[in-house]
Amino acid sequence: MRTLHSAKKPDTQIKLFGQELRTPILGAPITGNNFNMGGALNEQEWAEAMIQGCLTSGTLGCTGDATDPAMYRAGVEVVSKAQGQGIPFMKPRQLDEVFDFLRQAEQAGVLAVGMDIDAAGLVTIPVSPKTKEEMKTIIDNTSLPFIIKGIMTVDEAEMAVEVGAAAIVVSNHGGRALDHTPGTAEVLPEIASAVGGRLPVIVDGGIRAGIDVLKMLALGADAVMVGRPLIIAGYGGGAEGVALAIRRMTNELKQAMVLTGCQTLKDINIDVLF
Amino acid sequence: MRTLHSAKKPDTQIKLFGQELRTPILGAPITGNNFNMGGALNEQEWAEAMIQGCLTSGTLGCTGDATDPAMYRAGVEVVSKAQGQGIPFMKPRQLDEVFDFLRQAEQAGVLAVGMDIDAAGLVTIPVSPKTKEEMKTIIDNTSLPFIIKGIMTVDEAEMAVEVGAAAIVVSNHGGRALDHTPGTAEVLPEIASAVGGRLPVIVDGGIRAGIDVLKMLALGADAVMVGRPLIIAGYGGGAEGVALAIRRMTNELKQAMVLTGCQTLKDINIDVLF
Amino acid sequence: MRTLHSAKKPDTQIKLFGQELRTPILGAPITGNNFNMGGALNEQEWAEAMIQGCLTSGTLGCTGDATDPAMYRAGVEVVSKAQGQGIPFMKPRQLDEVFDFLRQAEQAGVLAVGMDIDAAGLVTIPVSPKTKEEMKTIIDNTSLPFIIKGIMTVDEAEMAVEVGAAAIVVSNHGGRALDHTPGTAEVLPEIASAVGGRLPVIVDGGIRAGIDVLKMLALGADAVMVGRPLIIAGYGGGAEGVALAIRRMTNELKQAMVLTGCQTLKDINIDVLF
Amino acid sequence: MRTLHSAKKPDTQIKLFGQELRTPILGAPITGNNFNMGGALNEQEWAEAMIQGCLTSGTLGCTGDATDPAMYRAGVEVVSKAQGQGIPFMKPRQLDEVFDFLRQAEQAGVLAVGMDIDAAGLVTIPVSPKTKEEMKTIIDNTSLPFIIKGIMTVDEAEMAVEVGAAAIVVSNHGGRALDHTPGTAEVLPEIASAVGGRLPVIVDGGIRAGIDVLKMLALGADAVMVGRPLIIAGYGGGAEGVALAIRRMTNELKQAMVLTGCQTLKDINIDVLF
Repeated sequence: MRTLHSAKKPDTQIKLFGQELRTPILGAPITGNNFNMGGALNEQEWAEAMIQGCLTSGTLGCTGDATDPAMYRAGVEVVSKAQGQGIPFMKPRQLDEVFDFLRQAEQAGVLAVGMDIDAAGLVTIPVSPKTKEEMKTIIDNTSLPFIIKGIMTVDEAEMAVEVGAAAIVVSNHGGRALDHTPGTAEVLPEIASAVGGRLPVIVDGGIRAGIDVLKMLALGADAVMVGRPLIIAGYGGGAEGVALAIRRMTNELKQAMVLTGCQTLKDINIDVLF
Repeated sequence: MRTLHSAKKPDTQIKLFGQELRTPILGAPITGNNFNMGGALNEQEWAEAMIQGCLTSGTLGCTGDATDPAMYRAGVEVVSKAQGQGIPFMKPRQLDEVFDFLRQAEQAGVLAVGMDIDAAGLVTIPVSPKTKEEMKTIIDNTSLPFIIKGIMTVDEAEMAVEVGAAAIVVSNHGGRALDHTPGTAEVLPEIASAVGGRLPVIVDGGIRAGIDVLKMLALGADAVMVGRPLIIAGYGGGAEGVALAIRRMTNELKQAMVLTGCQTLKDINIDVLF
Repeated sequence: MRTLHSAKKPDTQIKLFGQELRTPILGAPITGNNFNMGGALNEQEWAEAMIQGCLTSGTLGCTGDATDPAMYRAGVEVVSKAQGQGIPFMKPRQLDEVFDFLRQAEQAGVLAVGMDIDAAGLVTIPVSPKTKEEMKTIIDNTSLPFIIKGIMTVDEAEMAVEVGAAAIVVSNHGGRALDHTPGTAEVLPEIASAVGGRLPVIVDGGIRAGIDVLKMLALGADAVMVGRPLIIAGYGGGAEGVALAIRRMTNELKQAMVLTGCQTLKDINIDVLF
Repeated sequence: MRTLHSAKKPDTQIKLFGQELRTPILGAPITGNNFNMGGALNEQEWAEAMIQGCLTSGTLGCTGDATDPAMYRAGVEVVSKAQGQGIPFMKPRQLDEVFDFLRQAEQAGVLAVGMDIDAAGLVTIPVSPKTKEEMKTIIDNTSLPFIIKGIMTVDEAEMAVEVGAAAIVVSNHGGRALDHTPGTAEVLPEIASAVGGRLPVIVDGGIRAGIDVLKMLALGADAVMVGRPLIIAGYGGGAEGVALAIRRMTNELKQAMVLTGCQTLKDINIDVLF
């Protein structure tokens, strides 16, 4: 906590994937409304709530992928209708499916595309880890910026840089894929330090309030992804709910920046935690 | 715990702001009786309980500041009626308001004045952090000893010394201003060590019994401020309740000094904790 | 957690006591159905569930020993009927009883035999610790591979190697023999490191899921023993229940290997924990 | 935990104050049956339960002191009737009372006498810490071995040796005298190490089972004092109850020695804890 400084009206802007965003809080890739969220919204309704809510609050949302390829397709279509302002994520499927999914994203004119490879242990879809060579083949195969979500070690962050990823997401799939694996906040500092600015480092996992965003940025992240709070907000209030939740967290982030003396996101470093 | 020594009747006296106090326990600045404490007392009644209760038990109390400037004024008036034996605190308002508030305090003939700058994140009053230069301007603008409450880092403690503060209060606003910020007991030792006696270091936060006072003094504080226990005591018993609570904590402090071998407050050092 | 690698279909095979096993999960020695498990199964029924369930799932089970020598004998007979594919364990009884028990095992043609010397504090049977010399005499007295279960320190692991044990089990008898003794996972790394591959190091204690197996192997174990989950499974479903439980844990282990990049059990090292 | 050794039938004997005891577990000084224990026993009944119960189980009990000097006297009389086989403890009273209490103990022919100076913070009796000089005067004033109970630091242990104490008890009065003071197990190792065998180091505080005795001896104590469990046992079963409780804890201690490879109390060192 710091009180003697000039950061009276902090600025939370950030440039990511060529876009000027008003907040470093992105909407995470989420699907499976029926089996994960109770099904009050269908895939398209949910994707619209996420993508539009993020745009309204000056940031970007993602869409996801699950068992039925139609779920991925629904997300791509919603992003397409939003002039491509969103990021579809695919599961680490077989290479031919990956290529097909990349084509769909390209034709939809999306901003960027990603793979949540932290889901490589799923037994309900044919997914698998990818070797460095396979990942390079995938990335070389598309003209879109490609984000790898599920990096938890320095060595794999290094691989992500080498194969040409546009960004990484430090993620353990919300802690639901491998019990007892470290939290993302534990591994983030050494990963961010190793990456050293060569690509943006995004992080997710347990971010529930603006102070959590401050902490993740202090630990080295450039931006964060938020999932669960946006599900609650989006199921309750659609796009408006999502936008409200992001604005609330952004305001909390600004208040935390006031009380730690950070005028811009770049000022948020490890010292603000102590 | 120590039992073989001569500290049979410890002395808790301390000299602060030119006053000889019988105990190092000060009453913290508190306002907002309606929205914070349920409103059974009005601002003036509460301030009288605090200021008179502290005087009765041989120490000093503070008054506070909140949304309506009348709250600050009520506190100043109560201190004035007590021959100035009390310390009004103002929020980190706009400079012109600060100057106005300083004038009120000076005209009331108070002992000292303070600013709880740890409230700089409030959104209900126009407050803000202050730069080192602004703080110097404020302090240069008054003839009263000026206390900065809300110092949590060594660098800002150093600034407080440089701009001419009469004392600092190591405080995070009771932990209510910035979630997950360190506790005052964590940062106190290095701040007290850096200050090195150039000004008195007061601390607040979670002090509920005499043993907590001993611990804060052992960690480097010269005196402490207590809030919540005095609200409970003052709402239950007015000035008499406040005085009773301070005497109880002072007696507990004496008993703790007996069992740690400390004859005077100066004898309370880090060794008594182990 | 690792996701960029080629461990898409991990292999959990291991060679132990000359046998090719499909999983490193062994069934622990358990007896006392009446006083420990409620008695819905008798000794023979339980031993059959354990031994057959393990064989069905491609691994080995143990039988145990308790107050009445008939319990040990029942286990040996069940192993005998399974063509010796199982490991009878005896308590650290008086030497003459130990020799008698070894003869029974040899005549039954079992694969290996063991002693759970971690039960040396029992007061219901005449048992005791054994000196290094006594243990050497015991091992020299039998032609069977002899497993010492109950090693918790480096010095005693060294003794076990020196007296010719075929394997050790790092075990504190499920934490039920000596309150406040360290957990097996705490002492395993230094024991495994000291043994350095001179004999197989097995471990038990609190292993409830495949991720626990991964952790024990990462800490240096070659294989694990599981007790309580197999009691639950065996009491509910007999040999089929035991086999199901082992397969479930083995599948969980494989999924954990996928998400940590381990193609074989030998690839599971300390790095997978972080 | 150790299982490969020769400690099959451990010996818990110890020589203290010239007596051969069968166990290192002493009964702690306890009084105030009316205000501390509900009053079902009077002072004499309780002292007899404690002193006789300890003697029956081959060890020594203490009697105590509280507000009314008659309580101390009652204890001395009970010890006297037991041929002096017990240790009266007095509070750190004014010197003239201390001298009077010493005379009573000497005339009763007790084995040794003690002072629980950890009660120096009591406000219900005129007690106080004692300076090193006062303590030397006290000890020089009696022909009895004198035990100081309430040593929690190395420097005061050193003073105890210098003034001629016969033993010290590392004690914080059961944690009830000074909140947040360290536990006795925390400070015991460095005190025992500093004393280096120049006098017996006894410890109390939270000892509830034989394994706790093992841990305190492993941390450097020569013997322990037990209070609360003996109150429960003595109120339920008189001297027989006290003896039963001590035997149970002694048997637990033996079993713990079997499982840590300790043949005598001298073999119990810091290594048994890991």
